[in-house]
Amino acid sequence: MEVKLKKPSLDFNDRFAEENRALMLKHGIYVLDLLASPGAGKTSLILATIEALASRYRIAVIEGDIAGDVDAVKIKEAGVQAVQINTGGACHLEATMVARALASLELENLDLIIIENVGNLVCPTDFDLGEDAKAMILSVPEGHDKPLKYPGVFQASKAVILSKIDTRPSFNFDERLFTRSVEQLNPHAVLFSMSAVTGEGVPAWAQWLSNQIEEKKTCS
Amino acid sequence: MEVKLKKPSLDFNDRFAEENRALMLKHGIYVLDLLASPGAGKTSLILATIEALASRYRIAVIEGDIAGDVDAVKIKEAGVQAVQINTGGACHLEATMVARALASLELENLDLIIIENVGNLVCPTDFDLGEDAKAMILSVPEGHDKPLKYPGVFQASKAVILSKIDTRPSFNFDERLFTRSVEQLNPHAVLFSMSAVTGEGVPAWAQWLSNQIEEKKTCS
Repeated sequence: MEVKLKKPSLDFNDRFAEENRALMLKHGIYVLDLLASPGAGKTSLILATIEALASRYRIAVIEGDIAGDVDAVKIKEAGVQAVQINTGGACHLEATMVARALASLELENLDLIIIENVGNLVCPTDFDLGEDAKAMILSVPEGHDKPLKYPGVFQASKAVILSKIDTRPSFNFDERLFTRSVEQLNPHAVLFSMSAVTGEGVPAWAQWLSNQIEEKKTCS
Repeated sequence: MEVKLKKPSLDFNDRFAEENRALMLKHGIYVLDLLASPGAGKTSLILATIEALASRYRIAVIEGDIAGDVDAVKIKEAGVQAVQINTGGACHLEATMVARALASLELENLDLIIIENVGNLVCPTDFDLGEDAKAMILSVPEGHDKPLKYPGVFQASKAVILSKIDTRPSFNFDERLFTRSVEQLNPHAVLFSMSAVTGEGVPAWAQWLSNQIEEKKTCS
């Protein structure tokens, strides 16, 4: 008798995720899956990352949205390849959707793919897309108590980015408490704080991401 | 031959939602299902609503969170009944969860129940909990483009509340564009703008909610 403990839908997703991962390894492309609530600053971080790294790396972006293509348009205006996925209601990206998007990119001309997941701090956490790492953004206006309420995403992320730090004066955000909560949930997470408006913190983030890309290239 | 077009899980949910709705009608209790992203200000709006209406109405709050009970503690400190639901990973509340929470409340002593759903602009939209209306909050820091990206929640909400308007000077939020987008998606939605910090806009919201409660009482 066979007892299945994992959900069949995740098994199905995981199979495609592994195929995506193998394809990316073959091409030596580092893939980052970026998670955050709506409006936390995913697109702004991606644009800042493109500005910081586009002279050294060939970058593409996969944009996940329920509807619309406003972000993909912004990314293309920044001069890099962008593919829009509209989930049509689904609250997260799945590995099959990413597989289709990868098929439309020129993989031989890429070093880095950033996947902007659907704005949602919960559901995308459970879906492996074949990425090298998940990273997440929490913005100052969302409040320092979010690690306690949404622990899964903080545990799943290799990097945690506190965004919109230029707005600190308007909000009662306890950064020490936030940092301690994240460290308790995920002692291995690398923490960044930044403002896409002032540019503060962007170089440290870009340096970390650059190190990840180089490491992947060495191993491919 | 029977062809089922609706998802079985939603059918199951809808049955319990109708039971909740019948129970609330029997007791003349108005139920509001409050949706928003993490950190948009759901708990702050609830606390402001309690302050505005607690002298006239008997209020209870059902708190939906993946984990933790920080919000339920805050609500109880404000002197009203609060029940915490921990979904343990699920990204939305379901009618069965609410049914269990209702069973622990003194329904004969209530006029209004506010359900604070899990912070998520996507998934809670699809689940009828037996509420009279869904209302949603978008905060200024999240940006005016969100109706285009998350149309479902704007369409499902009877009231749309723009929160944190005291932070307008820090953000490039185009309120006319936002209003026009919401009106296009949902011409019947009632729009409010408010700040829980300054109290601006709270009286108009409280008046609207009060009208809804009175209307329900008249019909029960």
